[in-house]
Order: sequence, then C-alpha cells, then structure tokens
Amino acid sequence: MKRITIRDIFEAKETVYRFLKPTPLFYNKQLSEKTGAEIYIKFENHQPVGAFKVRGGLVKLCRLTAQKKEAGVCTASTGNHGQSIAFASRAFGVKARIFAPANSNPDKTRAMRDLGADVVLKGKDFDEARLICEKYSANTGAVHIHVANEPDLLSGVGTIGLEIFESLPDVDILINPVGGGSSACSTGLALKTLNPKVEVIGVQAEKAPAIYNSLKAGRIIEHESADTFAGGLATRIPFEYTFGILKDILDDMVLVSEDEMEKAIISLFDTTHNIAEGAGAASTAAAIKYPEKIKGKKVVLLLTGGNLTRVKFHEILNKWN
Amino acid sequence: MKRITIRDIFEAKETVYRFLKPTPLFYNKQLSEKTGAEIYIKFENHQPVGAFKVRGGLVKLCRLTAQKKEAGVCTASTGNHGQSIAFASRAFGVKARIFAPANSNPDKTRAMRDLGADVVLKGKDFDEARLICEKYSANTGAVHIHVANEPDLLSGVGTIGLEIFESLPDVDILINPVGGGSSACSTGLALKTLNPKVEVIGVQAEKAPAIYNSLKAGRIIEHESADTFAGGLATRIPFEYTFGILKDILDDMVLVSEDEMEKAIISLFDTTHNIAEGAGAASTAAAIKYPEKIKGKKVVLLLTGGNLTRVKFHEILNKWN
Repeated sequence: MKRITIRDIFEAKETVYRFLKPTPLFYNKQLSEKTGAEIYIKFENHQPVGAFKVRGGLVKLCRLTAQKKEAGVCTASTGNHGQSIAFASRAFGVKARIFAPANSNPDKTRAMRDLGADVVLKGKDFDEARLICEKYSANTGAVHIHVANEPDLLSGVGTIGLEIFESLPDVDILINPVGGGSSACSTGLALKTLNPKVEVIGVQAEKAPAIYNSLKAGRIIEHESADTFAGGLATRIPFEYTFGILKDILDDMVLVSEDEMEKAIISLFDTTHNIAEGAGAASTAAAIKYPEKIKGKKVVLLLTGGNLTRVKFHEILNKWN
Repeated sequence: MKRITIRDIFEAKETVYRFLKPTPLFYNKQLSEKTGAEIYIKFENHQPVGAFKVRGGLVKLCRLTAQKKEAGVCTASTGNHGQSIAFASRAFGVKARIFAPANSNPDKTRAMRDLGADVVLKGKDFDEARLICEKYSANTGAVHIHVANEPDLLSGVGTIGLEIFESLPDVDILINPVGGGSSACSTGLALKTLNPKVEVIGVQAEKAPAIYNSLKAGRIIEHESADTFAGGLATRIPFEYTFGILKDILDDMVLVSEDEMEKAIISLFDTTHNIAEGAGAASTAAAIKYPEKIKGKKVVLLLTGGNLTRVKFHEILNKWN
C-alpha cells in the first residue's frame, strides 16, 4: 500500500473543508506552568462527531467510485471511526453498516445510529467485530473500510498537521495518542515534512501497549489484551500500514496509566472546560508525566476526541474529588 | 447612544476574525426528537475564553484611540465579560483592571489573571463591583468599559448572527439567554435584518427576571435579587441601551428554573459532550420546557458559554443521577 505524502494531505483539504472547519489550537497557561513547557491544545473534540476521525472518513467516502457508493460500505469500530464513516456516508448518500463490539460506548453507538448507520453490536472486542465485518463484506459486496490500513483516511486526518503548522509554525513537539496510529502517522508526517525538526511523541496506555512493544522489537507483536477504558487506544494487533509509517515518524513513545488519563481528564476540564475521552486525554497525561521531555519547548497536545460517557465522567469525578 | 445596525456588525467582522474563528453550529438529533423541532446548537463555549463575549471585547479594544489605549481600561464583571476584556486587552497591549464581586466563579477570575489582567475581588454583586470600578475610573483616568451599554461590544457579538445565517439561512427561531441582553440584541438584530421572519425568544432565570418583568411593564424595573447559579443571567438592573433594543427584537420571553438549567446541562453533556454553564444551558432548558413554541421549526439554541466549575458540575451530576 502506497505511503501517503504531504501532497496527498493537501489534496484532501478540498473535501475536508467542504464539510468541516479547522479546529481551534489554544495556549494553556495552567498546563504550561505545570510542565515548564509552552502547551497548546488542539481540540478535535470540537468536530461534529466529537473526534478527529471524521476528517478521514469524508475523504475515503468522497473517493469511492459510483459503483462502490452504490454497493454501500461496512466497517468495524469501537466508536469514533464508526461515527466518522456514518457521518461521511450520510454526507455522500451511501448506506453504511457498522460492526461494533457488544460492550461499546453507548454514546458512540447511539451517535452512529443517529447519523443513519445500521449498527450491529457483536463480538467481544474490535478484532472479533472486524472478522464479522469482513465476512459480511464478502457475502454482500459492501465495501469494507479498514480502520487504519487506508491511505485516504490518513490523508484526511493529516490536515490536522497543516492546521497546527499554520497556527504555530514554530511548534517543537507534537504529543499524539496512538491507538491504530492513524492520527500520529498523518499529523506527524505533515508536520515533519513542513519542518523536519519537529519531534513526535506517541502515547499508548500501559494496559494496551501493542505498538509500544512492537516498536521496541522492530516488528509487529500482538498483545494479549487491551483492557483500557480509553476505547481509542484499545488496539491489540497493530496495523501493518500505519505501523510502517509510525516506525519512521515517532521519535519517542511513552505509556500512561488509567489513573494518569483520568487525572488528565480532570486537568483538561479545570483548565479548558472541555471533556476529553481517555484517548483524548492521553497526550495531556504524557505531558504531565514526563515534563523533562518537553521543558522549554512549544508543545502541541492533540486532544483526539471527547466522547466520554456521563457515567464514566461521574465515576472519575467521584474518584479524584 | 446610537443603536447599532447590521452595517456595524459587518464592519466588526474584520477585527473579530483577525483573532477568532467562526464557531460550529451542529444539528442535534436527540434534542430534536425530544422537542419536535429541528434543533441546532451554536457552540460559543468553543471560543478561546469559553464564551461569546470575546467577540465584542476585541472590537471595543481595537477601536480605542491610542491615548485611551495608553490610559488602560477597567471594567466590572462577574466572569465572561471580564475574560473578554482581559483577552482583548492582551491582544492590543492594553493594561486592564477587572473588578469582580467577591463570590465570583474562581475558574473565570483565574482565567482573567492568566490573560494578564489585574483582578480586584470586591463587592457583594455585580452592581457593587461596578460602582467601585466607576470610582477607580474617575480617580485614575482608566477607560471604563460598560458590560452592555457599548455599541462596539454589540457590533462584535452580532457576528454570531451572521454566522448562523450563513450556515442555516432558513432558521425560523433563535432562542437566546438574556443577562444584560447583549447577545440577544445583536444576534437577533443581525438575523432579523437578514430575514424579518426570524423569531427571537429570550430566556431569563426565574430567580433573576429583571428584564422579563421590565418588558412586561414596558419600562426598566430593578429586581431586588438575582440569586441564580447562572452567573451570566444574574442581572438585577437592566441596562438602558440593550433594553431599548430588546424591546424591539424579542418576540417572546420565557423563564427557566434552576433545576431546568441543571437538567439542560446534563442533556447537553449527553447529546454533545460539551459543558455548558447555567446561562449557556438556558436556551436548551427553554426549548425542552416549551416544545409547543418551536414545534416543526428550525431552531438555533445559543450556547453562550461553558465556564462551569467542576465543583458545580459534580454537584449537578450527583443531584440528577
């Protein structure tokens, strides 16, 4: 599969901005004081589906042939990717079926249905849902959209990097949550092409360290579990396409605990009155955990999404009150 | 004082968009189903200070003469107006002093200080803080910026109306929280000029009904208290300038209770994962309370701001769990 370049990202802009507006990038004084760095937050939770993924879904759907649009699409997702495909399918008048694991975030599956997608809750985790989806695609001819091994998804998501560079051309470090790796790959690629000195630090959950372990080993290693509350980070099996790019793009990679993500959700509430989901807060958790890696630098924390349930947020407030 | 026109609002655009981006306007399916209307939320909580006021502060500060900029500015505010003036003063390199009542929202006063303003906590409510501010202005020559009786503030805020019209030209109804009335005046004026058929419904708190009562009476009547948790609605004494415009712009006005605003905060969390402060949720509370006023119509709910403290949000979650 062809690796995307900055040209692909520039070509994705037309489709992305036909439907979306650039998201804000705001300086955060309190987190800057706490970490000793100059901290900026990129708010992808302000997207219509509450997460960055929608940028990629639009580009993918836009570029399907008329025949494939007619056939409909299907995908497997625990949440934000499914919302993205549902949103984009509605935008282009395409039928979408989303296979989500049985225990998926109910806010996210509700949102997919609200966008007109047909949602099937089945399988114990993402990988089981994916197998069911592949079978459905083979049986029906619906176009299977993979959650990460899709250059068009990455091209759309990479527009985050262009927006960051436009607002803050002298950014030193991007800290980026890594689930499948699509946002770190593409945003990092855009920034590093525009300024090779930019460092990209990836973040995974201690409880879902598949890509962290794979990068250390230099090859893809599955992890037996991905038992994190951060649905966006819950990947057991790294994806070949994004893993190949991550190997080149990431300068460093760190792990954060469940507690650290929960406390970062609170820090983001207190300093910005935004809600981050676990994955969305992972970049902030990493900045707070490793101030020595960013001291004195201009740092962008990608807040990838905000689709946290009220039940979970309430639990976090009770726990850390 | 000259009443603003749509021309003033158009002239404010240049300054507003030098610093800010248009905020999103998203369709909300769940609230639409709940109310029987077609509901769109305008997210002013996505502004850098978490509230709409910053649009006006920028225009006011931009237009001060060099001499006045040199003299510095002062204002009285319980929160979002103060953040707006602090933000705009920093943008134009002007010294700002904000007088806030002693019991002000600590997130908001912290934010004013983070923006470089000198914050004085004094007085038991807004009106006491305003008197202290006026004395300070008289003694020092600092330019007093009134919270509402300022055409430049209204011109900047009116850009909300242009953005709504651009995204949703066939909007039927705007529901707008009313504290001093600056957003209802100016947003309503923009929309009604562009399409005289648009209806504007103002919302106040049952516990702070000064403008509601004044409109019924046809003249300004002070209310003895403004004991609502919605700081943005806590006005005891209507302002002459905005009251004069509100009389012409508002087609209807309703009151919502403290409980109704709290429950609307929860509805907004559940359906959008955004945090609204009390005033910000008042428009949603009104839509839920009076579905018969909006049935079958395209309705914009202005979410004016999101600066709710964690303590208050936690209290709301515990209460309505």
